[in-house]
Amino acid sequence: MGPDRILSPVFEPADRETAARLFDAVRAATADEVGVTRASYGEGETAAMQLVAAAAREHGLDTAVDPAGNLVLTLPGDARREPAVWIGSHLDSVPRGGNYDGLAGVIAGLLCLAKLKARGATPPRPIQVVGFRGEESAWFGKAYLGSSALFGKLTARDLDRRRADDGKPLGDYMAVAGVDTKPIAAGERLVDPAAIAAYLELHIEQGPIMVARGVPVGVVTGIRGNIRHIKACCRGTAGHSGAVPRWLRHDSVFAFADLLMRLDDNWQALLARGLDLVVTSGVVGTNPADHSISRIPGELNFALEVRSQSIDTLEAFYQLVLVECASIERARGVKFVLDERVVSEPGVMDRDWTARLRKICTALQYSYIDIPSGAGHDAAVFANQGAPSGMIFIRNAHGSHNPEESMDLADFMLGVEVLYHAATGPV
Amino acid sequence: MGPDRILSPVFEPADRETAARLFDAVRAATADEVGVTRASYGEGETAAMQLVAAAAREHGLDTAVDPAGNLVLTLPGDARREPAVWIGSHLDSVPRGGNYDGLAGVIAGLLCLAKLKARGATPPRPIQVVGFRGEESAWFGKAYLGSSALFGKLTARDLDRRRADDGKPLGDYMAVAGVDTKPIAAGERLVDPAAIAAYLELHIEQGPIMVARGVPVGVVTGIRGNIRHIKACCRGTAGHSGAVPRWLRHDSVFAFADLLMRLDDNWQALLARGLDLVVTSGVVGTNPADHSISRIPGELNFALEVRSQSIDTLEAFYQLVLVECASIERARGVKFVLDERVVSEPGVMDRDWTARLRKICTALQYSYIDIPSGAGHDAAVFANQGAPSGMIFIRNAHGSHNPEESMDLADFMLGVEVLYHAATGPV
Repeated sequence: MGPDRILSPVFEPADRETAARLFDAVRAATADEVGVTRASYGEGETAAMQLVAAAAREHGLDTAVDPAGNLVLTLPGDARREPAVWIGSHLDSVPRGGNYDGLAGVIAGLLCLAKLKARGATPPRPIQVVGFRGEESAWFGKAYLGSSALFGKLTARDLDRRRADDGKPLGDYMAVAGVDTKPIAAGERLVDPAAIAAYLELHIEQGPIMVARGVPVGVVTGIRGNIRHIKACCRGTAGHSGAVPRWLRHDSVFAFADLLMRLDDNWQALLARGLDLVVTSGVVGTNPADHSISRIPGELNFALEVRSQSIDTLEAFYQLVLVECASIERARGVKFVLDERVVSEPGVMDRDWTARLRKICTALQYSYIDIPSGAGHDAAVFANQGAPSGMIFIRNAHGSHNPEESMDLADFMLGVEVLYHAATGPV
Repeated sequence: MGPDRILSPVFEPADRETAARLFDAVRAATADEVGVTRASYGEGETAAMQLVAAAAREHGLDTAVDPAGNLVLTLPGDARREPAVWIGSHLDSVPRGGNYDGLAGVIAGLLCLAKLKARGATPPRPIQVVGFRGEESAWFGKAYLGSSALFGKLTARDLDRRRADDGKPLGDYMAVAGVDTKPIAAGERLVDPAAIAAYLELHIEQGPIMVARGVPVGVVTGIRGNIRHIKACCRGTAGHSGAVPRWLRHDSVFAFADLLMRLDDNWQALLARGLDLVVTSGVVGTNPADHSISRIPGELNFALEVRSQSIDTLEAFYQLVLVECASIERARGVKFVLDERVVSEPGVMDRDWTARLRKICTALQYSYIDIPSGAGHDAAVFANQGAPSGMIFIRNAHGSHNPEESMDLADFMLGVEVLYHAATGPV
């Protein structure tokens, strides 16, 4: 596609109505008191899958279930064996979540195939739309279950993970969903990455950037990885809050505050150099067993999470964390005790696909921005398996993982146009 | 007393043995699994009182109980009606506390009277030693019960305060201890402050300063008051930890850290100007109901306590707290919600008595330091009632309110010497 080409939209108001009806039907079928609940490999997810499959069949598409239990939609009669373009996202939600996180990408794929079917068009490469199961870590403590299973990336131990609400193991839920868990437990590859020409995913933005910037479509530049300490501790010395002067204090809370402000300074410095970084300490607390307003806190527990699209930035910042901890230990007579470091590698979006998505936005005359994905997505699994991957974000108010998430269907249809042209255009 | 006078010690090894035996006896009678437990107006406190009274009688002293249930020791036959010098401290302890917090001051007073009795000496003014009940706030949530009752400073509501461990009201415990609670509930004054020539109290230091400085005796310059917010909150905006960039974050934990570091800077600046100040945030926590390592913390609850011997310093620093909160609110888009401000006024030690205690230390050739009391004492009640008050601190390792508190009896006897000369010397 040349840089100056103008593309015309292919979707019509009726397609938007199709999407609206399907969003509404899935919401109604999976509603809880406040939002929607679609457990990974569980009831709500299966209900969503059945409604999406039924809608696909209404539009003349073929439906199937892959060996990991994921829903697969294809154009009927496309028997080509060459590498396919995959369009995917997930069908599950967090407990009391929102209707669009995941589902939007599956419905977007369905609309693309339905449009091709209606036009009687054959895309240059086969397309398969996948509605993944088990993307949310809220249920079994691990994300990307349905996509990881395809690549032999789940273990027998993973199948023994217990669902957070009822304690029943993942393997049991998979079996109920019709999955043969033996090859999954054995770590067998159920799909060949070489058979995937590309992986494309449309998803609502889970942060506030696109609303703040007033842009409906985002081209995802990368999926942030992270380095985490889930349960770190600053140990000082407890003491009477009135009886110990500043020079004799080893106050764990002041030391932790010192660490955060030093990290804040480093963070700002790295942002000023154009690097991608967010830093969060989401869980913080003195020990309820012995803390008191009149006691110098001897112990502060905290979580620390650093995210970046760049593994180099993650590592560089992490080294700064260690340096600042050591410096504060000397200055304030405390000790930082860090638990096991957990690293999740960033997912790098394919440069060619990212460029292609930008060109399509331009050709459609859509306003768009480049945006990192702070949250994880099945796309990260595909990218790390070597499948060229690209993601489209849709503007969404109020973040995600809550019932207030709010996507305008007009924005959604812009993203679907981009997805359609990406999946069906020349490479 | 002239500045160049040399005083000779009056106490002998036998007196130290008396003290040791009494400390041991009270410890044995009030031992729990790990330390000692003497509930305010409760069992252990009464046991301690009976042992001290018995020891006093063995030394030929008169014993009585005042209208608030406190133990009173006097020289027999001293019927003078003129204002007396009071020597006091308390008989109760926190649960699983140490043996010396409070008891040391009562035994010190007993030793002074016993020495006078043994010498057949009549001090220039009458002396009464008081072993107070109910000084520790750990039991009924309020400190200084026995001394406050004497000045009509308890209310009917206070008598209805429930003991932390069994929920029974203070009034019931007072009645069991033989106290007529009607005048106390009515706020009647049971003692005339004008009848008190001075109030002197010996107490272990509850901080680490004297150990760090290697000084056995301290002359207390004042008792720190405090300004507290028991349950303050920093409110920001929760969000996905990966999906919200720095410029759109309203992170309550970073904002709180910012506040503490700004207060730390101000604190150091005030110390550099010679002012007395300690700052503590002893209770800190994100909300366990919704915090997560992958969630920007929308809410941080914290306690804040500022202590100083100077009400002016307290107020000045408190204004800085408000200024910094407002500045951070603007800078970080958060809101600090401060609950009711609770003020406890500093207790000012009498300038003449403090000078006299210093001179006595010098005349006895004891190494001493001026030291603020960070913890509260009955002496603060007397000072705020207009009784000229002075306090002597004894070096003590490991702080107080724990079984590890550790006072050397040699240090203790130095303090008793100072107390004796103060109570019996010319004014």
